Amino acid sequence: MKYSFKNDYSEGYHPAILEALMKHNLDQQLGYGEDVYSKEAKKLVNKKLQRDSQIYFVSGGTQANLIVISALLKPYQCVISAATGHILNNETGAIEATGHKIISVETEDGKLKAEHIIAVLENHQNKPHQVMPKLVYISNSTELGTIYSKSELTELSHFCRNNGLILYMDGARLGHGLSSHISELSLFDIGNLTDVFYLGGTKNGALLGEAIVINNEILFEDFAFSIKQKGGLLAKGRLLGIQFLELMKNDLYFELAKNANVQALKLSDFLKTYNIQFLAETVTNQVFPILDNSLIDALAENFEFYIWKKINDEQSAIRLITSWNTSDQAVEDFIEAMKKYI
Amino acid sequence: MKYSFKNDYSEGYHPAILEALMKHNLDQQLGYGEDVYSKEAKKLVNKKLQRDSQIYFVSGGTQANLIVISALLKPYQCVISAATGHILNNETGAIEATGHKIISVETEDGKLKAEHIIAVLENHQNKPHQVMPKLVYISNSTELGTIYSKSELTELSHFCRNNGLILYMDGARLGHGLSSHISELSLFDIGNLTDVFYLGGTKNGALLGEAIVINNEILFEDFAFSIKQKGGLLAKGRLLGIQFLELMKNDLYFELAKNANVQALKLSDFLKTYNIQFLAETVTNQVFPILDNSLIDALAENFEFYIWKKINDEQSAIRLITSWNTSDQAVEDFIEAMKKYI
Amino acid sequence: MKYSFKNDYSEGYHPAILEALMKHNLDQQLGYGEDVYSKEAKKLVNKKLQRDSQIYFVSGGTQANLIVISALLKPYQCVISAATGHILNNETGAIEATGHKIISVETEDGKLKAEHIIAVLENHQNKPHQVMPKLVYISNSTELGTIYSKSELTELSHFCRNNGLILYMDGARLGHGLSSHISELSLFDIGNLTDVFYLGGTKNGALLGEAIVINNEILFEDFAFSIKQKGGLLAKGRLLGIQFLELMKNDLYFELAKNANVQALKLSDFLKTYNIQFLAETVTNQVFPILDNSLIDALAENFEFYIWKKINDEQSAIRLITSWNTSDQAVEDFIEAMKKYI
Amino acid sequence: MKYSFKNDYSEGYHPAILEALMKHNLDQQLGYGEDVYSKEAKKLVNKKLQRDSQIYFVSGGTQANLIVISALLKPYQCVISAATGHILNNETGAIEATGHKIISVETEDGKLKAEHIIAVLENHQNKPHQVMPKLVYISNSTELGTIYSKSELTELSHFCRNNGLILYMDGARLGHGLSSHISELSLFDIGNLTDVFYLGGTKNGALLGEAIVINNEILFEDFAFSIKQKGGLLAKGRLLGIQFLELMKNDLYFELAKNANVQALKLSDFLKTYNIQFLAETVTNQVFPILDNSLIDALAENFEFYIWKKINDEQSAIRLITSWNTSDQAVEDFIEAMKKYI
Repeated sequence: MKYSFKNDYSEGYHPAILEALMKHNLDQQLGYGEDVYSKEAKKLVNKKLQRDSQIYFVSGGTQANLIVISALLKPYQCVISAATGHILNNETGAIEATGHKIISVETEDGKLKAEHIIAVLENHQNKPHQVMPKLVYISNSTELGTIYSKSELTELSHFCRNNGLILYMDGARLGHGLSSHISELSLFDIGNLTDVFYLGGTKNGALLGEAIVINNEILFEDFAFSIKQKGGLLAKGRLLGIQFLELMKNDLYFELAKNANVQALKLSDFLKTYNIQFLAETVTNQVFPILDNSLIDALAENFEFYIWKKINDEQSAIRLITSWNTSDQAVEDFIEAMKKYI
Repeated sequence: MKYSFKNDYSEGYHPAILEALMKHNLDQQLGYGEDVYSKEAKKLVNKKLQRDSQIYFVSGGTQANLIVISALLKPYQCVISAATGHILNNETGAIEATGHKIISVETEDGKLKAEHIIAVLENHQNKPHQVMPKLVYISNSTELGTIYSKSELTELSHFCRNNGLILYMDGARLGHGLSSHISELSLFDIGNLTDVFYLGGTKNGALLGEAIVINNEILFEDFAFSIKQKGGLLAKGRLLGIQFLELMKNDLYFELAKNANVQALKLSDFLKTYNIQFLAETVTNQVFPILDNSLIDALAENFEFYIWKKINDEQSAIRLITSWNTSDQAVEDFIEAMKKYI
Repeated sequence: MKYSFKNDYSEGYHPAILEALMKHNLDQQLGYGEDVYSKEAKKLVNKKLQRDSQIYFVSGGTQANLIVISALLKPYQCVISAATGHILNNETGAIEATGHKIISVETEDGKLKAEHIIAVLENHQNKPHQVMPKLVYISNSTELGTIYSKSELTELSHFCRNNGLILYMDGARLGHGLSSHISELSLFDIGNLTDVFYLGGTKNGALLGEAIVINNEILFEDFAFSIKQKGGLLAKGRLLGIQFLELMKNDLYFELAKNANVQALKLSDFLKTYNIQFLAETVTNQVFPILDNSLIDALAENFEFYIWKKINDEQSAIRLITSWNTSDQAVEDFIEAMKKYI
Repeated sequence: MKYSFKNDYSEGYHPAILEALMKHNLDQQLGYGEDVYSKEAKKLVNKKLQRDSQIYFVSGGTQANLIVISALLKPYQCVISAATGHILNNETGAIEATGHKIISVETEDGKLKAEHIIAVLENHQNKPHQVMPKLVYISNSTELGTIYSKSELTELSHFCRNNGLILYMDGARLGHGLSSHISELSLFDIGNLTDVFYLGGTKNGALLGEAIVINNEILFEDFAFSIKQKGGLLAKGRLLGIQFLELMKNDLYFELAKNANVQALKLSDFLKTYNIQFLAETVTNQVFPILDNSLIDALAENFEFYIWKKINDEQSAIRLITSWNTSDQAVEDFIEAMKKYI
């Protein structure tokens, strides 16, 4: 079987999580997230945030996005997203299916800036004939593996607050973002600067699970109804609670992300020695080298990965993703293969 | 801590399932249900069905219901359900949130019959001013713990086919229904007589998970898009595949349900010796005895359960649910307590 | 052609309205309700209300209902309606299509009372597993032609305010309700006691058009977006403005309704001389006599009307509706026919 | 009051229409489009189409668009539209509010070509993670006033048929499109080449009203339910029937559009004598000259029009719209003003 760099959910679950599930298996617990583990896990997240945020566990990223967005917007309000945003490209119109338009904005690096939002607002002045922009959707790390600097996120946050916009961060790979060697942001900052975000478990060692965190008190209201109505409330909520408890304890969550980042950086550093160009600088666990198609074909015989974007007739960008479980060996094998074919 | 008879999801997961998760943890698998375990589990279900049905795993019952119903109906079509139906009472309007009305029908025992449907059809002739009834939603076992006899389900199935209606069975407790000591139906029959059903894992030993089974070929179409759009497609689909593989192998699924039923029957048999009346005869894992309020108060000091329905000023019906993990000891303790207080 | 008592929209438009349209036809006006006629008409309604309500004109009753309800509710909130409510029976699931459940309440006379609402609230305490009741939908006159007394509406209004519920009145036949010989309510009272209502034009002499009136300032927000998004914003809004201006001037609106009521009362008074029973007392423009089926068949040869409800094998209730344009002659002809066949 | 070139719905209604309404005012008619006028008007449209299409009258363009699109698509299917499409820019997210994404395509002239669609299809191969493109939305004339040539529409139509796509034409200004001096298409061609289109009345002399025409028999199904559910079924359907009857009789519809086009062409021809550039060639009733901002300011003192697009710091494009009722005098006045300020 070929080794896969396709994504960070090809792997199983971190052993500590399975052990915790086994250990806490045979007691009776209240359902629907009222179990002791979920409560303790939420406390732990809030401790890191130094806040008293509302926290809800759901099973996946698309689910988190559609629940948050449909719960917070009025029917005629819409979302602003970078054109690379996951909600625009990989969620089968899940947001629109809840009734809300997403306005797509072209960016260089997958990151939204105040100037992008200003342009959208200026273009949406014909009331009531146009949707009303209300929620700014960003990802960190982004779908291109890039991350927000502290000043970038601070500026965007202030802009949103001053303009009555909700700032929502998709954190499917927030662990990787915050564990980047160039990251200036902590979980505390994320709580401080966003209105809502989610902390992704699925792509960082969990069986499944994302933690939705609502920081802005104005948005505290009956959120559990929205989760239940959209089919996101797990009966055995303990399954999510136990996992997040394990991931948050001793910062396992950040350790796992760091391993993924380190392996990606190795791949990137190696490729740079050959003067290979990238779609975006590698700072988390996604690597987007631009390679000759013949090289891509050769590599594809031994490795799985996505061809991300055609560059020209001879070259394409591929996407390599590393994970909490990517071994030194896998990275070395890939490097050896590269050396052979290049 | 009080022993809980509140529901069948207070428990953890069957040990065999956790062991299987551990055993298959460290290989890489394709995401989104394309893993080898999911494929094998589907084959196993189809083998029991002696069909080539389309099978999809999702994480919970409300999710299964809303995905199936919204995928199969046109915007102006609606659902017919017994007034006791889970979709009417316990899913926060999840079906209506996808745009579809549910017509509620009063029944004696939670079961729909052709005559109920006929009455609804006769009342919906004012076209196009009324919704168009199109999907018949039934549960087996029902929310009252009752089950369909073979002739009842056959008659309903034929009626639906002759009238262009889709017959959909909510199988949150299908294991318990089919494992009842009075059941005349097998999984093969369910595949044969319904257009769509789901096989519940959450309430029968799994961590989470329900298997949606589409039997009617006319309804085979692009169902995966609907799952993804509603946030129901797990990235690490292996989690569901491994569990259903384990549950289906050697009929663990039916064994677990049988234990729950046996323990419920013990409770029921004991209560009958005191001439206690029931909301419905106990044939699966739900017991609905009608008790004096003073007795209920006394029992509530040591056990958790739901007060289901006020009968009169002195008496109420309670609901006791047993599970795959309910021990002889728990049942005996309850019986002892009853003896003491009665 | 048979004379029709089927409904109040079989007729054309009141001549004064057509004349006004002709008179104001050839000036240029702003679109989308910003024309001078719409503005003046709104002022006139507000003058009668002695309020500063927000007023919007839309083209029909189903449209008014679905726009108001979907604009005011959060996705998980629902509506309470009498089982006879128009939104439950004659709008093809329009409300559910916007995502909201309607809870149906059996009543004797089509009118909701606080006690009905209390029972619903008590039955919806299982949070977040049930929808949240939030909006009380009533009709005046009701679908049975009955009307609210001042004390009934006052009590209901206070109950709703004390319980955080929105009180919304469907006024498709509000003119008829307020013009009833037993009515104790004025337009001023309706503004005072409801949060939102609409004033029906279609069934009272207009070509089309209903005026949505929002009295509760808390609900003042961006309503025009909702109208536009649901396809209810007419480009040539003057069409609605001119009509309501004409209807409101000199109380033409109430005069027209009064004629309909008077004709209905004549029918009812005549039928009473034969000791005929009614589904409901006739106080507006709907008459529901219970007649022998043979008599119904005989009448149907010369008149159009709906058979409303089977009473038993020999008898049914029919519905006779009179309008602003029902002539003395038409009523006399019907009475003569009755005399002949009875 | 300034003369307005802002749009084609500032005017009232063509006198012949008001006369017809008056003439047919006092008979009784069936409601909801079952009146004799609606039936006759549909026959007349079908005669011109030489087809037996299904025809439904609704009150406005946004309503027509949202009803057609939501009725024809499954929840996970989406629309392809030129970036200039009315549904993308001026309908407050009405389409998304029914659950469907619109994919926006940049074009030069507001017209979609097969090559645009091919690119979209190629970009939507990641099943089921992306929405499924299914309906192609075009406007004729377009939002830039341009029209499809016969070969362009034929090619697009064939492409859609060969690829299982529905071709839907927004005909808010179809009269203007077909009456253009360069048009090669007739109403017959439109029926032949599209699956569905609508024939706009509001912008061409009616009080309100658009005729939805379904040509493709595969799409014939229960459409009236969709209209009713979305609040688009007028009780007094005669209002729409009488108008379309009048517009279709003796081709009044095309005559009115022609006048609008002729006046626009006069404006355009005049502007060309000054070597003024346009956003698009004037072939229908929309003129988009690019003018110096100082000139625009001067003109704005006497005329109403939209500033459509900033070109650079000195120049902008404005939009001038003429209508069935634009007089020679109004055009001459504008030309005189231009001469004065230029």
